[in-house]
Amino acid sequence: MHPPVITFVSDYGLDDDFVGVCHGVIHAICPQARVIDLTHGVRRHDIGGGALILRQAIPYMPVGIHLAVVDPDVGAKRRAVALEVGDGRILVGPDNGLLWPAAQAAGGVVDAVDIASSPFRLEPVSATFHGRDIFAPVAAHLAAGASLQEAGEACDSDLLVRWLESRPTRRDGVLVSHALYVDRFGNVQLDVAHEDIRSSGLKLGTAVVLELPSGRSHDATYVRTFADVAPEQLIVYEDAYRRLAVAVSNGNAAEQLGVRIGEELRIRPQ
Amino acid sequence: MHPPVITFVSDYGLDDDFVGVCHGVIHAICPQARVIDLTHGVRRHDIGGGALILRQAIPYMPVGIHLAVVDPDVGAKRRAVALEVGDGRILVGPDNGLLWPAAQAAGGVVDAVDIASSPFRLEPVSATFHGRDIFAPVAAHLAAGASLQEAGEACDSDLLVRWLESRPTRRDGVLVSHALYVDRFGNVQLDVAHEDIRSSGLKLGTAVVLELPSGRSHDATYVRTFADVAPEQLIVYEDAYRRLAVAVSNGNAAEQLGVRIGEELRIRPQ
Amino acid sequence: MHPPVITFVSDYGLDDDFVGVCHGVIHAICPQARVIDLTHGVRRHDIGGGALILRQAIPYMPVGIHLAVVDPDVGAKRRAVALEVGDGRILVGPDNGLLWPAAQAAGGVVDAVDIASSPFRLEPVSATFHGRDIFAPVAAHLAAGASLQEAGEACDSDLLVRWLESRPTRRDGVLVSHALYVDRFGNVQLDVAHEDIRSSGLKLGTAVVLELPSGRSHDATYVRTFADVAPEQLIVYEDAYRRLAVAVSNGNAAEQLGVRIGEELRIRPQ
Repeated sequence: MHPPVITFVSDYGLDDDFVGVCHGVIHAICPQARVIDLTHGVRRHDIGGGALILRQAIPYMPVGIHLAVVDPDVGAKRRAVALEVGDGRILVGPDNGLLWPAAQAAGGVVDAVDIASSPFRLEPVSATFHGRDIFAPVAAHLAAGASLQEAGEACDSDLLVRWLESRPTRRDGVLVSHALYVDRFGNVQLDVAHEDIRSSGLKLGTAVVLELPSGRSHDATYVRTFADVAPEQLIVYEDAYRRLAVAVSNGNAAEQLGVRIGEELRIRPQ
Repeated sequence: MHPPVITFVSDYGLDDDFVGVCHGVIHAICPQARVIDLTHGVRRHDIGGGALILRQAIPYMPVGIHLAVVDPDVGAKRRAVALEVGDGRILVGPDNGLLWPAAQAAGGVVDAVDIASSPFRLEPVSATFHGRDIFAPVAAHLAAGASLQEAGEACDSDLLVRWLESRPTRRDGVLVSHALYVDRFGNVQLDVAHEDIRSSGLKLGTAVVLELPSGRSHDATYVRTFADVAPEQLIVYEDAYRRLAVAVSNGNAAEQLGVRIGEELRIRPQ
Repeated sequence: MHPPVITFVSDYGLDDDFVGVCHGVIHAICPQARVIDLTHGVRRHDIGGGALILRQAIPYMPVGIHLAVVDPDVGAKRRAVALEVGDGRILVGPDNGLLWPAAQAAGGVVDAVDIASSPFRLEPVSATFHGRDIFAPVAAHLAAGASLQEAGEACDSDLLVRWLESRPTRRDGVLVSHALYVDRFGNVQLDVAHEDIRSSGLKLGTAVVLELPSGRSHDATYVRTFADVAPEQLIVYEDAYRRLAVAVSNGNAAEQLGVRIGEELRIRPQ
């Protein structure tokens, strides 16, 4: 028997004790649990960024309890939920779209409970730190073997808040994509999935032009990896999550191009 | 039997190997220990900030060994200590006030030893990294079952360095408080505890004026949580540690108000 | 029987999910493994900095699998390797010099395999995230008991890429050293080892002059620890890894002096 696993992603950062306190709460309830910190570097209140990270990372995580907290409306009316999904995982977090893409990717929601008044809550529940008072203790009790039904009240999964990602389109031979995520290296992930890349007709080693909302355009090359070009060169490549991305070899594409999350990037083959 | 727990807070940061090396030292001595990193983001040499975090977080931590290192006088004359407190926890760290508030909150010091010359030290002891050479190995041996007496020489707990927090006062209907801590979101925690809030007469939903040392004053509302007001609005609220705090919904209060730790904030009901 | 240990150092940072995903991959393969994060704050692509951290930290780590990823040429022709060293440790990472100093310090390479086509790889192997797809799974299988031979193909250890550190010299009574590393506190580690310090004739408490490439020079004192001087004073001291280092008590020496990694610092006794 392996110990139960709780994965944990949030926008809490590591400068304060938010994450450490949640670890303490989990350990006090379920000492045998192993907590894997996916990251706590999600941009503050960036539900879309957190949702993307969780969905992309979850296939690499052991099946377990998946705790996620990016919660700009903490203490207000948004629901707090635990969701069982098709492949047996349980997702715990605010019902603000954060869990939705991962839930879909992991087989869809099979069962849902509202945990706002869970018997597993730590009392008194604060108005501003539900990670500590609701989400972490519920996750810990579920890891320790509690059933979803014990964790909260049944809720209609059709009413869950959804998070829909942008999709690329094609216009006159140009691939119109959108920036989804920027990592610490300044690499910009686009909403162009593996299948979209295949059908785009892009050919390894060929030149493309990147057109930005500012009206500026930049020459780039479609390659496999950073080291395929000289330092400082702009590239388009299929990233480790099999999405099209933009990078500067040995540089920072997001800064250099001035790209922001959600912005349109047009890719024109040459 | 659950594995022993060591919690760990410091100002080491995570950019270097300081924390990782301490984990390695602990594991080599007590492989069964579980280490919970409370945070390593305490501001450099900020004994008060570290003391506050430890005291506030400790009720959420499993009873165990609690390692804390914020140590501006490492290698100089300050004592290194391990303290057993009333509720059975053991605190390990420099005797510079860092452990004091948590020790008081956890039942007061019951027994104290000076570990500067502990037989558990790693030799040669460096002059600048007692986390690795003294505190972590002592914590690990205590987690592995060593007694306090084996860890060092008895020392008089009356001589321990104390850390006294500021306290709010009332003058002419104005609550005179002080900034204790600023978190990554810029929320400013004040020295006004739950009981002080209750006796202050502040009423949820009412307006207050915040007066700063600069002479400037700002309108705010006393509410339960961030989402109770529109973005960018200044609020006063009872935070997750049940202390009065100041925040800007979706913004950074510390930056916007220019508040620094220790500064006086006067709260005037309207 | 203690659980197997995997230590992990990289330049991935903690803002994204790179590290968390590697933890997930490891756990899925070897749930009993304990992962110790040495640090993920190595400067981007700084092979020398990563190599130094790994070499200096490894004596404090339990014997186990030591995973290191600073990999500017990921996806290109550099080899990926697992190395067994004299003291029984196994090092896993790119063959770009990163592992070399630690391997030498731990008894020298005894056996080496090329893991680029390891049967333990995660398919499809991405071109840009070998941490997830090659290094972490190989480390996990080795931790779970696989042999080096199962992990890859034998390779000639004489062909491994080496990383040679700079060495100090003496000219006309002046110690000519080089900056190896700057930590979060701005302390500058030099390439002057314990034995070099002893033979340098430096005497505790005496004044020295630091001469920089810019032509500027600064008065400093050779002391044991920061607290031996007043705040803001420049010191030279033997650091926790027994190397000569430069610091400003309560300040940031690297910023104040404008020192960069690799630069020459001349230390002239007075």
